[in-house]
Order: sequence, then structure tokens, then C-alpha cells
Amino acid sequence: MPKPLTFDPTGNTLPCFADAVGRMRDGSETPREFLERCLERIAAYEPEIRAFVWFDPAGPRAAADAATQRYRQGRPMSPVDGCPVAIKDIIETADMPTQMNSPIFKDWCSGRDAASVHALRENGAVILGKTVTTEFAMAAAGPTRNPFDHGRTPGGSSSGSAAAVAAGMTPVALGTQTAGSIVRPAAYCGVYGFKPSHAALNIGGIHPLSASHDTLGTIAGSLADAWLVARHISAVAGGTPPHPGLQGPQDLPPARAPARLIRLETDAWSETDDATRSAFEAAIGKLAKNGAKILDRRNTPEVEKLETMLKGVAETARIVSTFERRWPFLEYAKRHPGKLSKSAEERVEASRRIDTAQFTGALEKQEAIRRQIAGMTGRADGFVTLTASGPAPIGLEHTGSRGFQVFWTLTAAPCFTLPRLAVSGLPIGLQVLGYRDRDADLAGLARWVDTVTRH
Amino acid sequence: MPKPLTFDPTGNTLPCFADAVGRMRDGSETPREFLERCLERIAAYEPEIRAFVWFDPAGPRAAADAATQRYRQGRPMSPVDGCPVAIKDIIETADMPTQMNSPIFKDWCSGRDAASVHALRENGAVILGKTVTTEFAMAAAGPTRNPFDHGRTPGGSSSGSAAAVAAGMTPVALGTQTAGSIVRPAAYCGVYGFKPSHAALNIGGIHPLSASHDTLGTIAGSLADAWLVARHISAVAGGTPPHPGLQGPQDLPPARAPARLIRLETDAWSETDDATRSAFEAAIGKLAKNGAKILDRRNTPEVEKLETMLKGVAETARIVSTFERRWPFLEYAKRHPGKLSKSAEERVEASRRIDTAQFTGALEKQEAIRRQIAGMTGRADGFVTLTASGPAPIGLEHTGSRGFQVFWTLTAAPCFTLPRLAVSGLPIGLQVLGYRDRDADLAGLARWVDTVTRH
Repeated sequence: MPKPLTFDPTGNTLPCFADAVGRMRDGSETPREFLERCLERIAAYEPEIRAFVWFDPAGPRAAADAATQRYRQGRPMSPVDGCPVAIKDIIETADMPTQMNSPIFKDWCSGRDAASVHALRENGAVILGKTVTTEFAMAAAGPTRNPFDHGRTPGGSSSGSAAAVAAGMTPVALGTQTAGSIVRPAAYCGVYGFKPSHAALNIGGIHPLSASHDTLGTIAGSLADAWLVARHISAVAGGTPPHPGLQGPQDLPPARAPARLIRLETDAWSETDDATRSAFEAAIGKLAKNGAKILDRRNTPEVEKLETMLKGVAETARIVSTFERRWPFLEYAKRHPGKLSKSAEERVEASRRIDTAQFTGALEKQEAIRRQIAGMTGRADGFVTLTASGPAPIGLEHTGSRGFQVFWTLTAAPCFTLPRLAVSGLPIGLQVLGYRDRDADLAGLARWVDTVTRH
Repeated sequence: MPKPLTFDPTGNTLPCFADAVGRMRDGSETPREFLERCLERIAAYEPEIRAFVWFDPAGPRAAADAATQRYRQGRPMSPVDGCPVAIKDIIETADMPTQMNSPIFKDWCSGRDAASVHALRENGAVILGKTVTTEFAMAAAGPTRNPFDHGRTPGGSSSGSAAAVAAGMTPVALGTQTAGSIVRPAAYCGVYGFKPSHAALNIGGIHPLSASHDTLGTIAGSLADAWLVARHISAVAGGTPPHPGLQGPQDLPPARAPARLIRLETDAWSETDDATRSAFEAAIGKLAKNGAKILDRRNTPEVEKLETMLKGVAETARIVSTFERRWPFLEYAKRHPGKLSKSAEERVEASRRIDTAQFTGALEKQEAIRRQIAGMTGRADGFVTLTASGPAPIGLEHTGSRGFQVFWTLTAAPCFTLPRLAVSGLPIGLQVLGYRDRDADLAGLARWVDTVTRH
């Protein structure tokens, strides 16, 4: 049985599909060969890491062979033709069950691909398998282990997607975020996570949790693949109607050096320890050294105002998402007594205790924060903060604090997590946050931050 | 076999649940007795009218008996406890299949109630059966016949819901409208239709067509029931998140006499013939005689401006809804070749020919119209127009013109159709339109219009 992997925040040996495309076009590598290396990693690490809930290599091999043929004929379908993509198990797939990590959906087959999976197949991507999610992306954790310490959580809810990418089993996987579910597991697993602007990727065919916050995104071993796959979902499936979808270049935009960056602390700062803070300060130092003026609550009143508005925002987000999940979860609770986990049951029961006035009050607070951030567009090129308050917690039950993720989900604006910080040899993420529906600008900024914080 | 029913625009002999509630409370009638009268009508008319695609009296009888017990104990669950409600067959039901009038969903059981059905059951309503829809509420018509002329369409897509109500098989049924699918069949079948503000009733668990336009509403034999059932869906399930849901009193608001009403003609005016126009003019005359000042394009420049903005709006709506239905319909077309009707296939193919720029252009035009109407709030209490350009067309294939319905769906504002006009003994509706999220105000206005145009 292989030992846990070692995390190196300065390097990256994970497979990158965007890098391989040139070789596939010139014939020096084939999609089937790329896939086989992923399958070798799965064979080696999956028994211990348990990233997949459904996996059969036959379908992916057939899809990779078809892609190989298309490259041979000089006619790849798109820049993701032949790219393996693992799918979080709350996203419908026509050829595999979608089970939500819930006995209520045991062996359930929807018979259709979600909008995102449909788009990927239309582009020639190889749908690799279904990755472990927490129960309905909300409650009980699955069996997945953190690749860097098998006694720790990989984070959730996109647990399997992050762990599979971290172990090199796939270059990229789909995840969803309603509070912290893309960037938290990506951070704990030392990989890239991209939560696009709300609704920029079509969530059709994904089990609903909170329509105001549910966001589809990517987890990848490289920024290039995180962008590439997201952009090609949008190219076919657009956004969640009426959002027209993620816009921008087909490939990852060039690095964009910022004039000013806002450093955010948020409520979650109080959760951090000295080691985490000093890793973060070191990264901030590199950004400043490379020419970014750092604005923070101490030197900029507007930032202090935003920090003040963000106080208690986790509760605002909780009210919105808890109220919005009344259906279908009250229906499930009634129809399937005993089949929701205790933690899911508690969350569902909580939805009975929120009234419409509380909900609309929370929506108003959310809207005020969104307006405040939109008004800061000219003030700075983006924001930086931690992705997690420290390394992944010990144990598999608790998927970690959502303090550093939930506030930006509430803003509906995009963010990336970069695997550029380590504490005691374990990854914690550096989070780069942008303005709503300016995802391509943020991708360029994230690329710059990723480069200058590497060494 | 019973003869076609005769339409009387001055009277109404259809069952009204709101009227019966008092009798149920004092014990002079029971929900089971109310249901049995519906079942008698089903036995008499269903073989010819074919309103239901799935119907089994056992479940409704058990539910009505349970309601009867609650009334006996003096503890009805809500004002719709014991109310029979028929459900359009694109709305999920836990105990009956949901088949979308498509072979792709033949015998499909979702295993859960849609948010609206969940809410109705929580309130004690009797879920009566599933009513015929056109294919995915979009394309091929079902077998339902118009109760007033079996050789004519009942209208679509909520064909069975409207026909069942018209034949007295149920006091109320759920329908959905993306272009004209609630108020058109209600008009052709001589009953009431209520399309609430967009998203005011939760569409969770209803097959998607166009998220910007899909609207859940009610078709009923009385305004009281149309309001009652809609309001009690919202009381449990709210709106489609983040809409907080339809607000207002539990029972139909009192009649509200308007100071000014705007008479709209729209593009569809050119479809009308002399008989239809003169029926409409007679109704307008009654409104004026009862004290409403009528504003129209000839006497009010602001109305002329709105009429001008509404020119060509059917094409704007078509672009939005066609683009938004790319998923799941392109997925179905790929995965189930030959299983979409020719007309569905054409509509799905059309979605490939619309690009993002056309879509966002149409959204902007839509938004401009919405703003214009919102700005007219102080100008008039509401709007009146025809619901259909004439009686239901002959034949069952074509469910009628959407000219008089689609423009108000695009505005996201609420409307009612009232069975107050007849041409050659066949019903056409009088449409009363209101301002977005002021549904209760509109209900009061509709009640006034209904009363003063009755004789």
C-alpha cells in the first residue's frame, strides 16, 4: 500500500491536460496514453484514498480511444477532447448512477447527463467516474482520505474530486460549492480550485441545495486545466439560465500583474494559529515585493468598511441556504424517515425555524455586501486571503471550518484557491478573489499570484 | 356518452371548494362527499374528454377520508384541507408517474413530490391524478378534447388541467406557463386561470423549459379556488429560490374597483375577427360603465409607448426560451434519437441557431419592457386585454395562438383569465394583468372585473 503523498508548495508534478494537448496534436502522445497514466494512479492509490464511489475503466478507455482517433485524423473536437474529468456524485451522468452519498438515492440512475457533463462529452472529454461527495453536498462525510495524511479529512463536500486530483488520478474534476465545498477540499488536498461567478456554469442536472449559492466549478492539478474545463462547459451549456455563461478566452488568460490587492481577514481570522498566519504573511510579502500595493483594514477605510459588513456573514449565508433547501429536503425527511443522517436531519429541521422575514432580511444584507464589493472595482484588482484557517482537521467526520470560504460564496463573485501555502508539511490554500462576472480577469490575476508566490 | 357541455359566460355551476369549506367546518358536507361528486363527473366525462393521463380513485378517496376525519375532529390542517387538486404531468408526484407526454419519460417515477405537490399534501389537499400536458409542455399535443366542442383543442400545454376543471372533475388543477400554457387553455375551456408573478410559486420538481419564463399557477372553476390553492402552495413551499413566494391574504382578496385600467391590444390584435373584437368591446364598455377610466394607445402616449415596445415581443420571448432550453433537450435529442416528436425536434434544433449575443440582446429588451411596466404603477391599477384571439381552433393538433399570452409571461408580472367572453357559444377569455409581485392587488382587481362583466 503506498504511503501518503508529500506536499510541496513550490512544485507540481500532477498531470496537466493543457500541457499535453500540444503533444496530442503532434502525435507524440495520445489521449489513451494520458488516461492510462491516470488509471495507474487510480490502481495505486484508490484502495487507500477512496476518492471514487463509481468507477469502471471500460467507458473512459473507449472514450479515450475515440479521442485518440480524432487526433490521429487531425480533427480533435475541442481543446478538452480526450481530457479525463471526474464528476462529483451529485451531478447526473447518463451512464453511471448518481447517489448523493445518501441511501435515498442508492443506485439511482437519472438516465441523462447534467448540463455540464453533456457539454464535456460534446467536447470529447473522457468522463472518468463519480467522486465521493458528502451527503447531498451538505451533511455526512464519505470515506475519502486526505492524500497527504490518511488520518485527516480531504475536506468537503467535493471530497473525492479534490483527493482524486491530488493523487494524480485525474487532471481535473467537477465540484460544487454552496458554502466552501470547492475551495476548501482543494486547499486541504493541495490542488487548485476554481469557484466561478454564481450561475456562470450551468447547474442543470445537479441536486439543488441553495439556488442562491449553489455554484459549479473545477478542481485541478493546474490553473490551466481548471480554466480550460470550466470555459468549455460554458461554451456548450452556458450558465444557469438566464446567466449567459462564463466568458473569456478558450485557454487560461495570461498572467496579469495587479496594481493593488486587498488583503481580507474576515471573521475566520480568529480561527488561525501563528504558523498559518506567518505562512500567509510570507505570501503577502511576496506579492508586495513583486509590485502589488496591499490594501487592508488598517490602511484603507473602505476595506475596513467591507470587513465590518462581512462580520457575521456566515449566519446570513446560513439563513439563506437553510431556507432555500426546504424543498426537497422536507419532502425527503417526510418520505424517508431514518434515511437522512443525524446531521442532515438537524439541518433540515433548522429550515422549519426560519421565516420569510428572516430570509428576506438575509437576502437584503447579502445584496448590500454584493453592491459594496461591486463598488470597489476601481479600488483594487482583486482580493487575497487564506482558503482555510489551517491544515485539514484530523479525522474523517468533520470536513473543516467554512469560515474562509462561505463569505465569498455569498457574494456570488469568483475565486481561486492556489496550493501555495504549507503548515507542518500539509497544504492550506491561498485564496484569490475577484469581481462578479469578471472571471477571466481573475484567472489572469490568479496566474500571476500563483507564479510570484511559488518561490 | 354525454354531449359536449354548453358554455355560459354569465353563470358558473362548477364546484367551488372555497364555498364548501364552511359546510365542511359545520359538518353539513364532507371532503369525501365533495370528492365523490368530482369522481362522478370523471366517470361521466373522462372517456370522451381524456383529461387525465394517470388516475386511480383509491389514493384520493383515502386522502379525502383522512381530511373528513380531521374536519370531524374540528382540526382541518388548512383552508385547502380536503381540496381535490389535479396535477399537470410535468410536475413530479411521489405516488404517480410523471411522464411529460414523452416516450422518453414513459412510466418514469421520480419518487418524490414537487415542491408544490409537497406543499399541497402538507396542507391536506387531495392529489387527484395527473393531467395531460403537451410533450414537455412545449410540443406535441395530447388526446384531450375541448369540453365545449370535442372536435376542438382544449388549448395547451396545460390541456388536461383546463379540461378537467371545465368538466367539473376537479375544482382546481395545477398548470405551468412558459408562453401561454395556463391562461390559453383556461380561456379555451371557459374557466379561470392564474399565472402568478414569475417565481412566486416554487417550481422545484417541475421539468424545466425556460427558467426565465417557466411559471407555476392554477386553473380553477372559481377565482376563490385559483387564489386559495396558489396561496397555500406558497405558504409551505415559498417561491422558486430566492423569491420569497406569493404574499397576500389566505383567502381571495375583496374586489377592488380600479380608478384607471389600461386597455392593451398588442401584436395579436391583428389575429382577431369582428365577433371577438365586439365581445371584447362589450366587456370594456361594462368596465367603463362601472367607473373605470379606460386608457389606451389612442388617448395615452405612455400606453402607445408600451404597445410599441411590445411589438415583436413574441420573437424576443422565443429567443430567450429557445436558448434556455438547450439543456436538457439537446441531451435528450442526442440520447434518444427518434423519441422527440417532429415539432419538439424542430424546436430543439432551433436552439443551436441562437448565439449568446442574441440571447443577451433579447434579455436586455425584456428588461426594458419590465422596467417600463414597473414605471406605470401609478398610472393605472392594471391592464385588460383578450386572453385568446378567438375560440379554440378546430382539431386537436394545434393548441392555438400564443399571441395574447406570451407578452405578459415575458414581463414576469401576474395575470388572470376570466371566462367572461363568448363567441358563437364558445369561450374566449378576458385577461386582467397586473404588476410584478403585486399578485394580491391583481386578484382583487380580477374579482371586480369578473363581477362587473358577468351580466
